[in-house]
Amino acid sequence: MSKPSFATDYEEGAHPAILKRLVETNLEQSVGYGLDPVSESARDRIRTACACPQAAVHFLIGGTQVNTTMLDALLASYEGVVAADTAHVALHEAGAIEAGGHKVLTLPGTNGKITSEQVDEFCSIAEADGSRDHMVFPGVVYLSQPTEYGTLYSLDELERMRTVCDRHSLRLYIDGARLAYALASPANDVTLPDLARLCDAFYIGGTKCGALLGEAVVVPDPNLIPHLFTIIKQHGALLAKGRLLGIQFDELFRDDLYLRIGKPALKAADALRALFKQVGLKLAFDSPTNQTFVVLENQQMERLAKLVEFDFWERADATHTVVRFATSWATRMEAVEALRQELLG
Amino acid sequence: MSKPSFATDYEEGAHPAILKRLVETNLEQSVGYGLDPVSESARDRIRTACACPQAAVHFLIGGTQVNTTMLDALLASYEGVVAADTAHVALHEAGAIEAGGHKVLTLPGTNGKITSEQVDEFCSIAEADGSRDHMVFPGVVYLSQPTEYGTLYSLDELERMRTVCDRHSLRLYIDGARLAYALASPANDVTLPDLARLCDAFYIGGTKCGALLGEAVVVPDPNLIPHLFTIIKQHGALLAKGRLLGIQFDELFRDDLYLRIGKPALKAADALRALFKQVGLKLAFDSPTNQTFVVLENQQMERLAKLVEFDFWERADATHTVVRFATSWATRMEAVEALRQELLG
Amino acid sequence: MSKPSFATDYEEGAHPAILKRLVETNLEQSVGYGLDPVSESARDRIRTACACPQAAVHFLIGGTQVNTTMLDALLASYEGVVAADTAHVALHEAGAIEAGGHKVLTLPGTNGKITSEQVDEFCSIAEADGSRDHMVFPGVVYLSQPTEYGTLYSLDELERMRTVCDRHSLRLYIDGARLAYALASPANDVTLPDLARLCDAFYIGGTKCGALLGEAVVVPDPNLIPHLFTIIKQHGALLAKGRLLGIQFDELFRDDLYLRIGKPALKAADALRALFKQVGLKLAFDSPTNQTFVVLENQQMERLAKLVEFDFWERADATHTVVRFATSWATRMEAVEALRQELLG
Amino acid sequence: MSKPSFATDYEEGAHPAILKRLVETNLEQSVGYGLDPVSESARDRIRTACACPQAAVHFLIGGTQVNTTMLDALLASYEGVVAADTAHVALHEAGAIEAGGHKVLTLPGTNGKITSEQVDEFCSIAEADGSRDHMVFPGVVYLSQPTEYGTLYSLDELERMRTVCDRHSLRLYIDGARLAYALASPANDVTLPDLARLCDAFYIGGTKCGALLGEAVVVPDPNLIPHLFTIIKQHGALLAKGRLLGIQFDELFRDDLYLRIGKPALKAADALRALFKQVGLKLAFDSPTNQTFVVLENQQMERLAKLVEFDFWERADATHTVVRFATSWATRMEAVEALRQELLG
Repeated sequence: MSKPSFATDYEEGAHPAILKRLVETNLEQSVGYGLDPVSESARDRIRTACACPQAAVHFLIGGTQVNTTMLDALLASYEGVVAADTAHVALHEAGAIEAGGHKVLTLPGTNGKITSEQVDEFCSIAEADGSRDHMVFPGVVYLSQPTEYGTLYSLDELERMRTVCDRHSLRLYIDGARLAYALASPANDVTLPDLARLCDAFYIGGTKCGALLGEAVVVPDPNLIPHLFTIIKQHGALLAKGRLLGIQFDELFRDDLYLRIGKPALKAADALRALFKQVGLKLAFDSPTNQTFVVLENQQMERLAKLVEFDFWERADATHTVVRFATSWATRMEAVEALRQELLG
Repeated sequence: MSKPSFATDYEEGAHPAILKRLVETNLEQSVGYGLDPVSESARDRIRTACACPQAAVHFLIGGTQVNTTMLDALLASYEGVVAADTAHVALHEAGAIEAGGHKVLTLPGTNGKITSEQVDEFCSIAEADGSRDHMVFPGVVYLSQPTEYGTLYSLDELERMRTVCDRHSLRLYIDGARLAYALASPANDVTLPDLARLCDAFYIGGTKCGALLGEAVVVPDPNLIPHLFTIIKQHGALLAKGRLLGIQFDELFRDDLYLRIGKPALKAADALRALFKQVGLKLAFDSPTNQTFVVLENQQMERLAKLVEFDFWERADATHTVVRFATSWATRMEAVEALRQELLG
Repeated sequence: MSKPSFATDYEEGAHPAILKRLVETNLEQSVGYGLDPVSESARDRIRTACACPQAAVHFLIGGTQVNTTMLDALLASYEGVVAADTAHVALHEAGAIEAGGHKVLTLPGTNGKITSEQVDEFCSIAEADGSRDHMVFPGVVYLSQPTEYGTLYSLDELERMRTVCDRHSLRLYIDGARLAYALASPANDVTLPDLARLCDAFYIGGTKCGALLGEAVVVPDPNLIPHLFTIIKQHGALLAKGRLLGIQFDELFRDDLYLRIGKPALKAADALRALFKQVGLKLAFDSPTNQTFVVLENQQMERLAKLVEFDFWERADATHTVVRFATSWATRMEAVEALRQELLG
Repeated sequence: MSKPSFATDYEEGAHPAILKRLVETNLEQSVGYGLDPVSESARDRIRTACACPQAAVHFLIGGTQVNTTMLDALLASYEGVVAADTAHVALHEAGAIEAGGHKVLTLPGTNGKITSEQVDEFCSIAEADGSRDHMVFPGVVYLSQPTEYGTLYSLDELERMRTVCDRHSLRLYIDGARLAYALASPANDVTLPDLARLCDAFYIGGTKCGALLGEAVVVPDPNLIPHLFTIIKQHGALLAKGRLLGIQFDELFRDDLYLRIGKPALKAADALRALFKQVGLKLAFDSPTNQTFVVLENQQMERLAKLVEFDFWERADATHTVVRFATSWATRMEAVEALRQELLG
């Protein structure tokens, strides 16, 4: 791969501190399933970072797995999850939520986001419907922060979503697969303690944010979900060598690394966006995190694909396509520079 | 209930011939689970009516149950069902399809119908999507005939839908909960043999069409679904006293009763529509079967509700509501006349 | 079928009072889904018979359907149901409980029964197991009264089972598919009010006890299961013309018919058992209700099968088979007499 | 942990060659989901080791996850899996198989094994049962090699099991969570090519055999399971950074490391067994792999627990307990020696 690649944000391995710790502790023996002291240390660091000392924290392996497990844990059998029509759970999990028995109740998203007003109206109409008892009850609101489009919910938006959730007895769940890139963004005003205060459950993404794999689920009220350990096991989501996840999050939350780890991605993304504007490429919309969406005329896309790796996102119209450039914690400015050389010559 | 009622088409009991036969045979002993001679006779009559002598025919109890069982039988675990966003399986089955593990992939309907062009485009885009293997595969097209809005697919439309299904390796399934009201409509050009020729499975509705309860599932290729009997049992859909269903369909298909049973409903519905036009009520759209949708100004709706029972359907806008008037095989013209007296009297 | 038949207890139709009521009310219009006045009357009669005025009562269609729906409603996702290895839910529901996501945790039964001591020991071992969190938690105890072998739990046995359930935080659920034959037995000391007092949920069987179809679920604490109506709908178990079920239970509980309706079955079963003893046939065990299990030498079985219909039950050994003779509310003594003539002739 | 520990075989990290490769390739960019060149290389090595060039090979994360995913892929909705009552899928997966909709049909195991005769008899009885269509159909035989008790199936036993599977149209699936310890055992005569020839699917365990995590699923007939990639995704079992699994299996199958990696475990286990016999501890049965089961008088167990870590297995009787000692690829003979010093002083 000699071309610079911005295809996804999970193309590299792990932050060096993680690999170092793995090597150092490799032949130490420890009990499995996350009951080891390192996992306990990682949980404590996360509780501290979330200012939520009583939170239950579980380490799972990947995003689809976490979403399936947690929505199953949060939803009653007659409930579904409200989400943007572009949400990962709605489109790109191969029907995992439905395989777990739950409907995804979609609302039209705007650049990946839905509003508390939309949720409020949807629930109000559902509650007034004479056929309500023949329909799926909304049970959880699913948001992603940042969204699949790299956009952010503001603190005010989340506060209002929480209010609407309380009004309609919904739980609020946030998918933080790329949370480090929200936390690193100057445009973001939502902290980990805010998430812990506002959500019924959320997860802190590791896979895309410096870990080899792994996501940390945070349930601020530890009594909310009885036997979550067993629910995780039943979903095939309990890692035997749980220490592998513990080590990673212990490193990611040592000295607040997680709050900083997204910064190189943001710097590179800003440079990419500036470059695109400079050469006259049209951004689909402003995105304040590590993903940048560009509208390309199709032949232009083909030429560009010879110079750099990016991700096809969606057809805009017969002659235009939206493509995505993703940076990561591991992106080096040299890659952006290489692309600049190609484009500006 | 002294007001005339057009609230639904399942407010009465059964066609008198059915009750008569139940009474006559009440203390005869017969084996269970639909293996009795009367059920066999009913199956044969249905095969004859469908000009499909080899078809597998099973009797189940209600529409949601049939849809859940048959879609589960027709779909692979990684497949979903394509349906109009107004389809019964999409809205009014309390998430039964998802509880069975499958996603409902909705397309925007027009008066309850979707087109073969929509399905073709949806599948073509899905097949071209680079993330296809992370998404639910379309596996079955679900139509209802007549639709939830009382509209009809023409033979030409169904032929084209079949062609699209073949192009994309989809199965075609038709929900015939109100099929008698299609078959009785002068606007209809789709026969039972057409359905047997074009569908992978469909059901002939009993509950809304003269039976106490019961739906007859027809699978034209008897080898399509191995062990369907056991699948039905697993879904709690196997009636112990199967003869109860056999008797009803044996009567409904004796002398082609089923082809005629909807005619009184159509006559009454036509009279209702004429009456509504006469008094200046606005039909939401033209419907050629037993359901009529009327757009009412909200205060007008309240006044009308004092004279006659109908069904709230949906809010049209802040000041208008769509309501439904349903007639049935049992509707007497006296009920329409009574309403005419109230409105014109 | 000229031979007398004791193959099952659901070979006939319905009690004549039910058919009469169906005929009389056939063209009355009523709302669907069990919200009609007759269904409400039936619910009230059942509440009165159970001395449980606050109970939630729902009418479903068949036994497997009720068991699947109610166990799904009563169990958490990480829980399974404890049952005898011969229980209907363990053997003869085509895996419906597992299809709903729950394990059947079997204990060895004795003539269809399990003891509170067995349940207590099973739970105590499970609770002490270091791998407990990797295992299915017992959540519900499933009993049938009478059992699949026609045997009965005594009041004392049920009281002790309740105590064990309380000790281990289990719910108690009783399958009363043949409950009328328990209530009609002189050997029985468990009343409907006892069941309502001791169970978290149970059902009163209609299909095998005088109805065309239908089972009445009783949940003594109406707040135990939120949105049970919707859960029933999601399981495809909500009958559109709910009145059909309401009428049947309204008749079955008018003037306590249900408490008497099993008596002819008991009388005939007693006569059968006396006859079998007289002719030297060996009963597998004493059963006090409408089912009688006989151990036959295989050639003897073949000869007997020419004279009378019975049900193959299980192989006893290489040369012997256990067969079942079932009587019902509709069994006439003439059938027993006819068999007597054949055997003693 | 200063005491020697034989509690489980997944207490350490990974084989050093794996960590070395992870470190060396950490910042290389590669595509996700196992489509990268290293994963492809690992697949090729496994195909070669299995002498099965056409096999589909997929990398998943853990045993419960693999079993759930593969049994779901191999079973029809009306089928269950036949397994020993001590099988991991029967006991220690928190009901994951049932949560996926399938029953585990248990046969009594002997030291973890079931025989082809048992399966043959079970299927023959099921096929002859008049209620067969009301019961779960056996669809897959699940074996583990070595078993949960460390015992081995011989090649002859597996050949006969395959014959029985063919006779009854069953698929054969083998759980190889600890397969390296079978392959390293002098008592073993079953090779990887034998498994590929005899099984419909099996997996090669990584987690317990030298990897940080990961299991390699082998499906010898690549057309057996359409869209297995999507099925894996739907089960939340598709790792984003698939390269992490690819690297591990590429190292484990480089120069046949996997065939040798279990040898230190076997050497240590043999030494443990010799030591136990020397000091008069009673082995529960002879086991030829890395797990050793010892029957201890309860007070003896408590004294021993002060000297060494082991795993409580099950109560033998009121005064005796079975405990397990597990060695692994990482066990050093020093640990056995330390225990010898403690026991023999």
